[in-house]
Amino acid sequence: MSMGIGVIGAGWIGQEHIRRLTERVVGANVVAVTDIDAERAKKVASDVDARALGTGQEVIDDPAVEAVVVTSWGPTHAEYVLAAIAAGKPVFCEKPLATTAEDCLRIVEAEQAHGRRLVQVGFMRRYDAGYRQLKQVIDSGGIGTPLLMHCAHRNPTVPEGYHSAMAAQDTAIHEIDTVRWLLEDEIVSAQVITPRSTSNKYDHLTDPQFMLFEMAGGARIDLEVFVNCQYGYDIRCETVGETGSVSLPDPAQVWLRSAGQVRTEVYQDWKDRFADAFDVELTEWVRAIHDDGEPTGPSAWDGYAASVISDATVESLHTGRVVNTQLKDRPDFYG
Amino acid sequence: MSMGIGVIGAGWIGQEHIRRLTERVVGANVVAVTDIDAERAKKVASDVDARALGTGQEVIDDPAVEAVVVTSWGPTHAEYVLAAIAAGKPVFCEKPLATTAEDCLRIVEAEQAHGRRLVQVGFMRRYDAGYRQLKQVIDSGGIGTPLLMHCAHRNPTVPEGYHSAMAAQDTAIHEIDTVRWLLEDEIVSAQVITPRSTSNKYDHLTDPQFMLFEMAGGARIDLEVFVNCQYGYDIRCETVGETGSVSLPDPAQVWLRSAGQVRTEVYQDWKDRFADAFDVELTEWVRAIHDDGEPTGPSAWDGYAASVISDATVESLHTGRVVNTQLKDRPDFYG
Amino acid sequence: MSMGIGVIGAGWIGQEHIRRLTERVVGANVVAVTDIDAERAKKVASDVDARALGTGQEVIDDPAVEAVVVTSWGPTHAEYVLAAIAAGKPVFCEKPLATTAEDCLRIVEAEQAHGRRLVQVGFMRRYDAGYRQLKQVIDSGGIGTPLLMHCAHRNPTVPEGYHSAMAAQDTAIHEIDTVRWLLEDEIVSAQVITPRSTSNKYDHLTDPQFMLFEMAGGARIDLEVFVNCQYGYDIRCETVGETGSVSLPDPAQVWLRSAGQVRTEVYQDWKDRFADAFDVELTEWVRAIHDDGEPTGPSAWDGYAASVISDATVESLHTGRVVNTQLKDRPDFYG
Amino acid sequence: MSMGIGVIGAGWIGQEHIRRLTERVVGANVVAVTDIDAERAKKVASDVDARALGTGQEVIDDPAVEAVVVTSWGPTHAEYVLAAIAAGKPVFCEKPLATTAEDCLRIVEAEQAHGRRLVQVGFMRRYDAGYRQLKQVIDSGGIGTPLLMHCAHRNPTVPEGYHSAMAAQDTAIHEIDTVRWLLEDEIVSAQVITPRSTSNKYDHLTDPQFMLFEMAGGARIDLEVFVNCQYGYDIRCETVGETGSVSLPDPAQVWLRSAGQVRTEVYQDWKDRFADAFDVELTEWVRAIHDDGEPTGPSAWDGYAASVISDATVESLHTGRVVNTQLKDRPDFYG
Repeated sequence: MSMGIGVIGAGWIGQEHIRRLTERVVGANVVAVTDIDAERAKKVASDVDARALGTGQEVIDDPAVEAVVVTSWGPTHAEYVLAAIAAGKPVFCEKPLATTAEDCLRIVEAEQAHGRRLVQVGFMRRYDAGYRQLKQVIDSGGIGTPLLMHCAHRNPTVPEGYHSAMAAQDTAIHEIDTVRWLLEDEIVSAQVITPRSTSNKYDHLTDPQFMLFEMAGGARIDLEVFVNCQYGYDIRCETVGETGSVSLPDPAQVWLRSAGQVRTEVYQDWKDRFADAFDVELTEWVRAIHDDGEPTGPSAWDGYAASVISDATVESLHTGRVVNTQLKDRPDFYG
Repeated sequence: MSMGIGVIGAGWIGQEHIRRLTERVVGANVVAVTDIDAERAKKVASDVDARALGTGQEVIDDPAVEAVVVTSWGPTHAEYVLAAIAAGKPVFCEKPLATTAEDCLRIVEAEQAHGRRLVQVGFMRRYDAGYRQLKQVIDSGGIGTPLLMHCAHRNPTVPEGYHSAMAAQDTAIHEIDTVRWLLEDEIVSAQVITPRSTSNKYDHLTDPQFMLFEMAGGARIDLEVFVNCQYGYDIRCETVGETGSVSLPDPAQVWLRSAGQVRTEVYQDWKDRFADAFDVELTEWVRAIHDDGEPTGPSAWDGYAASVISDATVESLHTGRVVNTQLKDRPDFYG
Repeated sequence: MSMGIGVIGAGWIGQEHIRRLTERVVGANVVAVTDIDAERAKKVASDVDARALGTGQEVIDDPAVEAVVVTSWGPTHAEYVLAAIAAGKPVFCEKPLATTAEDCLRIVEAEQAHGRRLVQVGFMRRYDAGYRQLKQVIDSGGIGTPLLMHCAHRNPTVPEGYHSAMAAQDTAIHEIDTVRWLLEDEIVSAQVITPRSTSNKYDHLTDPQFMLFEMAGGARIDLEVFVNCQYGYDIRCETVGETGSVSLPDPAQVWLRSAGQVRTEVYQDWKDRFADAFDVELTEWVRAIHDDGEPTGPSAWDGYAASVISDATVESLHTGRVVNTQLKDRPDFYG
Repeated sequence: MSMGIGVIGAGWIGQEHIRRLTERVVGANVVAVTDIDAERAKKVASDVDARALGTGQEVIDDPAVEAVVVTSWGPTHAEYVLAAIAAGKPVFCEKPLATTAEDCLRIVEAEQAHGRRLVQVGFMRRYDAGYRQLKQVIDSGGIGTPLLMHCAHRNPTVPEGYHSAMAAQDTAIHEIDTVRWLLEDEIVSAQVITPRSTSNKYDHLTDPQFMLFEMAGGARIDLEVFVNCQYGYDIRCETVGETGSVSLPDPAQVWLRSAGQVRTEVYQDWKDRFADAFDVELTEWVRAIHDDGEPTGPSAWDGYAASVISDATVESLHTGRVVNTQLKDRPDFYG
């Protein structure tokens, strides 16, 4: 098999996905690329013997394109995903699915109108080996009914353009999806608590933020988002249930004993920490599209829910209040 | 040296302290014991060649008693501590210092009137090797200014008499003291969030409880109290600062590889987990009284603060609101 | 790119490699399969739309076959590898390269006569992330000059056909290659010490065996081979240098706290433990053949050296003496 | 209780034991001290209100001395231990019991002639919490019959006076005793293998040394002694049995995440690593002498065996051969 893929957006993440689809994923073939920067599109396309096209719509319309990958600027996601649905082509969209809950909802409705799942959202943590083991232990009853989850999401630093709302929209959105998936339950409220901010940051930024989420079933989630923690990219997750607890391990790294210490390295970059997860994500997506014609990963509904919940989180950051999430009823279409 | 000690209250913790003072602490000699159960007092006293006396006041008045240990029922603590202060004798009082903030305050005032520290409260975690390392790292600037602290306090189970307010008064009170000591800062508000309760418990009990504390300096503390976690007695503490984080290690236990697993034991009992801390606590107390005539450990003020803060925590449990702690100004007397 | 691959031997490991080449390795295409069991060859070939051929020679001769994978019964390896060299086709041969040092040497000589590297031997540990980090630390001087290496190779159990010489020939052969690669030095002597044997085994089997190797540069290696250790498949390696030591980590697995223990799973199978290493091994082999026409992994010389050293190890098992390895001088051809 | 103790030898270890007996051990009272340096004896004695006496014999003869601690220069141990036995007084002797096997044997014989145990040798590892857990797991059958033991004994550095034979006599002697105690079995042969020596050392010193011991029951022990490992004082021990393995943990130290690493401290000094073990050792010795009049710890026979085995180890270092230990038959007296 070899599925023709069109990529819309050839920036950093687009190039990464093109590289993965070319070098790491069996059965995929990037055939068309577009970017707002036509020169960049040409350069990237020529590296993999793909066509550089002028617009996202041209990519979607290209007969050789059997499935679409959307890695353009966030505000353009909705347009391209809707166009792919209109064309009846499977589309893998990097998070966020859209920059407003309304646009997410339009996608959800369009997909339902189409009658079959076409959309997958790029929440790659569901493909991380550690998280999958975590889910397996939870699902198998290894810790009993989950009651609490303690999470941390730390980056060594962020660029100056990062603003306080992005802690929810860009960073916590990964845990928002992960929690919903791990617990198979919905988040009903969000609250942000703001500790003293680090001095290693921009004046405009509230960092760290301590977030609290409540699940419909009563479990409570706490999440430290700290994007200027200095020391590394570090992801922690412990789920506590009625009879035990299960935790993500630190990544396996060699242990060095020297100069009076036992030590191991911490990743500095999410691209390294989740490199394998990205490979598995695209591999399984291509395989599912090829075998069944529809994706099995995070759905448009998951993208919509993450959008609503991160909006509620930002609202809490601004108001200081607990904010209830106002999700529509989940359509049967999404199981 | 050998300091004569009188013990008021010969129940479980009283007997434990008598045993420690006799077998583990150099320079101490239990000379008098009393208990509400006169037979028990006689039995316990005769085991260590001490006198059994009829009342706490008699113990305090005994000329051979140079320092007093109060391990009686909580509601009687204030009376005996005040009597020891009146007699000008050093007194080690198990937590709580008193069962009301008002009584704690009376002790604080009596001690100040006396003009020298006489009171030490039994917050033994300050003597645990792990917590001391944690404090050393924080004090040395190893993690920069602390911003967050993530704690868990888990017991395998509790007796039926344990009720929801005790999560703050009996259990979290240890973290309340530890946090104030580690960060050298005061707690200004408390909030309790109540996840779905475990089904492995009594209907009357809200368990786990998730507590949030705010420090005057802006650091935020979260604490899971889960007293029916089933699997063991487990204490976790991570302090996150501007440049790094430092965590309590699990106690050192041998690693067993067998039957498909790598495993190590979890303590089932706080008495085992903090056995060394109790030894060090009493050893340093006896040494300080002997050398300088006054204690260096947790003070009456610390006992008062813990009382006010645990009251605020219970109030939040009942009201669901953030409750500001209403501490008096700290007297210069307490540094 | 898509390189045509012919596979000789469709038993368990052959099928695994076919699956990997088909599902996990980009740029490879299994086009021809043979097996001593013609029915099995047909079945396996049809699953991947390859041709089933009658003999290994036919596979090698097939014009569509650009590179050969030899996964047949060990005693047939030399014949097929020599035939591939004669045909001038790259050949990946599962270990052992040949069952006698003489046959390995014939391959080494044939390859040199050919004038370019064609042979790669299946020592997959060089592709394991942990071992690669170990090598990186050693190469970067992180532990100073290596002096000692402590290794263990444990299997939960082995089938009854496993005999005592296989501890060196089949099991320790992985460490023999790994040590030579990690230290970039040659093994000059081998010694086997035989502890009391486990009772969980066959009477004919000496298990565990404790092996000692001496490097030309003076470093010493010890290796516990224990193939009926019951509890799991467990690989340990610590290299001790003049200024520090570096150790393989246990694989990252979630930590479960339950029933009084903290625990993590141990792999039961080398196929799981080294699954990623196998993927990387074949991916890099295909890439190297495609890009440069010759392999970069373990060479025929490495296969020859491993054969001589494992023979010496078996001799020591039988004689109880230290046995010097009698390697030919390393040809310049092999760097 | 308060037992009068006389200390012979007030050098570093003597002072340490005096401090422990004074500050950490309940029921002991150092009443007499002697040292080859009379001024030092006076100084040390006056610090603890003990008498400074002129000779070891005077200490032994002092009626206030109920038990003797020998911490003088090794070559004088035998004389003082024999004198204590002659006086019928319990004697705790730091290792070695004597500097020759012959002298050890004289002590063994004298003690038997006396008819009751009087001698304990200072092998403190038997009192380390980790080793005790190890023994408990082994004794409880947690790993099945022990077959192998892997040990390492690393010091950051040693003074120039340290010579190659001391690797066995001073360093490995701890593991020699520990192994005999853990496995309750005798060492029947010793062998030393000499890897390339570290360049961070004296030319006269063979370091590291890799030692192999064979037990009567067939288990095999390997021990890396590396006294200039640079990075820390590090003790490792794994016992492998028929169904599992059990390992000493690293000491519990806080985990610091900073500057791209997760790290914990390694002890630099055996005095810190085994501080608790020394406390427990002397506490249990004093308790046993007080309660039963005879010690329960490592016996004169253990001191004799360690001497014979370390002699055999040194012989192997010099000859390169496996050396059988030539222990006398163990008298019934020693159980």
